[in-house]
Amino acid sequence: MATYVLIHGAWHTGELMEDTADPIRAAGHEVHCPTLAGNRPGDPKDTGLEEAIVSVTDYLDQNSLSDIVLMGHSYGGMVITGVADRMPDRVRRLVYWNAFVPHDGECLNDMVPEHYVGLFDQISGELGDGSVVLPFPIWREAFINDANGDLAQAAYDKLNPHPYKTFTEKISLKAFPEIPCGKSYLNCQQDTALPHSYPWHPRLSDKLGLYRLVEMPGSHESCFTNPKLLGEKIMEAGRD
Amino acid sequence: MATYVLIHGAWHTGELMEDTADPIRAAGHEVHCPTLAGNRPGDPKDTGLEEAIVSVTDYLDQNSLSDIVLMGHSYGGMVITGVADRMPDRVRRLVYWNAFVPHDGECLNDMVPEHYVGLFDQISGELGDGSVVLPFPIWREAFINDANGDLAQAAYDKLNPHPYKTFTEKISLKAFPEIPCGKSYLNCQQDTALPHSYPWHPRLSDKLGLYRLVEMPGSHESCFTNPKLLGEKIMEAGRD
Amino acid sequence: MATYVLIHGAWHTGELMEDTADPIRAAGHEVHCPTLAGNRPGDPKDTGLEEAIVSVTDYLDQNSLSDIVLMGHSYGGMVITGVADRMPDRVRRLVYWNAFVPHDGECLNDMVPEHYVGLFDQISGELGDGSVVLPFPIWREAFINDANGDLAQAAYDKLNPHPYKTFTEKISLKAFPEIPCGKSYLNCQQDTALPHSYPWHPRLSDKLGLYRLVEMPGSHESCFTNPKLLGEKIMEAGRD
Repeated sequence: MATYVLIHGAWHTGELMEDTADPIRAAGHEVHCPTLAGNRPGDPKDTGLEEAIVSVTDYLDQNSLSDIVLMGHSYGGMVITGVADRMPDRVRRLVYWNAFVPHDGECLNDMVPEHYVGLFDQISGELGDGSVVLPFPIWREAFINDANGDLAQAAYDKLNPHPYKTFTEKISLKAFPEIPCGKSYLNCQQDTALPHSYPWHPRLSDKLGLYRLVEMPGSHESCFTNPKLLGEKIMEAGRD
Repeated sequence: MATYVLIHGAWHTGELMEDTADPIRAAGHEVHCPTLAGNRPGDPKDTGLEEAIVSVTDYLDQNSLSDIVLMGHSYGGMVITGVADRMPDRVRRLVYWNAFVPHDGECLNDMVPEHYVGLFDQISGELGDGSVVLPFPIWREAFINDANGDLAQAAYDKLNPHPYKTFTEKISLKAFPEIPCGKSYLNCQQDTALPHSYPWHPRLSDKLGLYRLVEMPGSHESCFTNPKLLGEKIMEAGRD
Repeated sequence: MATYVLIHGAWHTGELMEDTADPIRAAGHEVHCPTLAGNRPGDPKDTGLEEAIVSVTDYLDQNSLSDIVLMGHSYGGMVITGVADRMPDRVRRLVYWNAFVPHDGECLNDMVPEHYVGLFDQISGELGDGSVVLPFPIWREAFINDANGDLAQAAYDKLNPHPYKTFTEKISLKAFPEIPCGKSYLNCQQDTALPHSYPWHPRLSDKLGLYRLVEMPGSHESCFTNPKLLGEKIMEAGRD
């Protein structure tokens, strides 16, 4: 049995990964769903990417976790890349679920369409506390396209304002992707959080070098719309 | 409960959408499947795109339909775009099922590979009455690839010669895609009526701006090969 | 009922297609799974593409097979193309299952990413007997990504060193693709034996001209991971 650590995406918390953790635990694995610095209740919204990465390395230290399958969703791909680069001996396999794959010196905003950067800049400027939020119409149409209207709204109400600095702070990597752990990319096939003309896969997955592809039907928010299948596919991506 | 208006594609009639309408009606919705001007028995084959669009706006007027989910298949995308641009207050959501998405001044032939335009020109020239037909081998291999041979032939026998002017007449749009209704794109994943190297999605879907993607397995002619699933997916695309 | 001839890919044998043949036989068809020259026990490993092609034309002659559905997997696409070009009157339909589609004067290595050619050159140089093998990590991650670890290893243990000259010898074709038989392309959707940024479909399938697309979930090695569905999809691709 393995130890899975599931790292949520922007605007989410670890708690929102618990439905996905359930089928993985039911298969006998240990699953952790920590919440990143910047997304915990009361966290300052000027948190940066480095602090988010350190919040996971601290979590692994405090819980003495090693030989882990480390999964990151979306923005969480930035974080798990940083964690694996700093603690390559702790990670058995990295699983990117429709997640950003940075190379040294890149930030999340370097990998999204320009109109998203413009929108994020504008919203963050209006909010003024360092955070950025996602307008509901974009969430409903492009992020959680496979939900009905009620679920789309209920899930939206669980999101928290995200620290925008984690999108703009460039990552510093020593060796990645040249680290010995296995690497998998889990692609939800109707994920249009990034447009299919500028897609997650294979545009970002290719940056991993040799990796294992796993796919499933579903949107960017399958943790809400199909957590059981998502958990099963994370295990397919995470196994040896 | 909503009101769905399903607009067929080239060579089809509204009657050929009835199997798809069944599961939508079974879910409690009202469904209309009008036949476009140019495809009704006895219609002159020099009908143009404008006349086809007006045949739908007339239908909405005569039946006092508003707040509709307006679905267009293939060529039907040209028509629903024109209808929504003229009557934006009647349309709650547009659903493009492997359908053409024109911008102002474009015609259908502007969005297909050159070898199709050449073929259509040649066939229409030979027929001489303004119509164009689809050769059976192209229908069987590229349009209804998921049918067995018997269904492929039976469906082909139900088609009618299509008024070619609807492919060459450029559309005139006032505001589209800047109209307030929701927009969805339903993509059948094995649809090779347009080649996957010059595809429906995301090449044409992207022209909608913000839209909802829904996908299903199946060919361009899922109204014959899998109408039940197609109806369900139209509802996923059409709901709020 | 039809006669199917299934041609295996590189490193495989006809025996490894037998699980796939089972559902086709169960549907009432006759199925042959010959092993190509160069992959039979004891074959010299300096066998070239021409010899592999002739081993199939000889097989068709010796077994008086005609009106066949001729399926080729991966490297087998090179072989069935050569067979159909030499014996167009024997072939009712060609089915390419994630297979190479050569035009006159091309070799397999012309259609793979440069880093694969470099790797094959290096491995073949080290082996020195004319053969090439696939490193296990590439097999496990990119070829049989949908297997668990045990099946990945068990299947790997059944492979045989492949005659590298069949990848570098250019094919000579008289008429292909201008031959009258039907053509289908069966694409396993998670097949990353070729990267999705330089894919099997539509990059290679387009070279067929008019063809029928059939798709299924699964990896390049669905003959091990899902032979029943694979056999069903080969029948969908192979029927009239």
